[in-house]
Amino acid sequence: MREGFRSDLQRLTGQLAEMCDAAASAVRHATAALVNADLVLAQQVIADDDALDVQRARCEEDAYALLALQAPVAGDLRRVLAVVYCADKVERMGDLAAHIADTARFAHPGPAVPADLAPTFERMGRLDAEMAERVAAQIRTGTDGFAELRQADETVDALHADLLATITGGKWQHDQRAAVTAALTTRFYERFADQAVSVAKRLDFASSGDLPQ
Amino acid sequence: MREGFRSDLQRLTGQLAEMCDAAASAVRHATAALVNADLVLAQQVIADDDALDVQRARCEEDAYALLALQAPVAGDLRRVLAVVYCADKVERMGDLAAHIADTARFAHPGPAVPADLAPTFERMGRLDAEMAERVAAQIRTGTDGFAELRQADETVDALHADLLATITGGKWQHDQRAAVTAALTTRFYERFADQAVSVAKRLDFASSGDLPQ
Repeated sequence: MREGFRSDLQRLTGQLAEMCDAAASAVRHATAALVNADLVLAQQVIADDDALDVQRARCEEDAYALLALQAPVAGDLRRVLAVVYCADKVERMGDLAAHIADTARFAHPGPAVPADLAPTFERMGRLDAEMAERVAAQIRTGTDGFAELRQADETVDALHADLLATITGGKWQHDQRAAVTAALTTRFYERFADQAVSVAKRLDFASSGDLPQ
Repeated sequence: MREGFRSDLQRLTGQLAEMCDAAASAVRHATAALVNADLVLAQQVIADDDALDVQRARCEEDAYALLALQAPVAGDLRRVLAVVYCADKVERMGDLAAHIADTARFAHPGPAVPADLAPTFERMGRLDAEMAERVAAQIRTGTDGFAELRQADETVDALHADLLATITGGKWQHDQRAAVTAALTTRFYERFADQAVSVAKRLDFASSGDLPQ
């Protein structure tokens, strides 16, 4: 049974790593759709999000089956429950990427964000995607990339604050709609990064046993 | 043991109901702070949010202890895991209320939102608080208030859409900063309502066994 539990848990965490890859891909494509006003790509990201929702549900069902069949305790119990918790957060990362894509879709054929802000959104998108990939690597190899993840999150937070300052500052040259769209969109990127950190924290808790604060 | 499990689970769901009450109170006070530019009240909401974070952590620790000691299966397992899931969402509701309070604090001594929008924010705050209270009642009495909850969520969504249309429309008479603040704030209310629905859905799943989509 011990051997069976190990391989079941490994399959489960493998599913979670795949979900992280899907979220990384989603935010990468959503960002490309946003800055290039690419309608087809935006629609693709929105459509693909359903698959991530299904993966989350399957991940959770498999975790419940594992709990019911094997009744793991202590560290093993924490590890299974961490997967359930993280799958929910990664699904949310996918939702946020879909929101970004939806912003691009809604503005099409116009650009959703002013050209002068596009490089900042591209940078946030790249950071978000790399964070999701780093979490996937952490799951697969057990490496601890938390310091780098925290640093990336701080950079995203700083870019978010800079963007809000630009949008609400006296030198804004675009209209109200562009201001509001940019403000909500930067928030989606910031929340994506937050979720990635919360996944990494939870995985760390699953190893250490200290509940994240 | 069966009897012990029942009373432990009841204590656990009681903690969750208390958390919902705290979230309801937080969004009520945050809204009052927002529309009345009440700094003391805003600071109180922000300070109180720590207590909700602690309640969430305790709720989760108690759930883990229950799982480890009693190894419940089937419906009982789902009920315990539902509490863990919901506690995380209710903590998030508290965070969103704190964000609203923080918006009021940041704008003080000025008003965070224009006076003409205050009635809409008040209505969203009332709806959010009532939704959280309805979920608490659902937990305590087992009554099914899902239809009413869904309806309240739709009203919040509609108010959110109306506000965004007002903010980005041609008749906006305030500055960029007011536009961005109002847009982000209405989003906090909308997300609060979403979390309440997701808690109610999860509690329903804990009874029915169908994973929410």
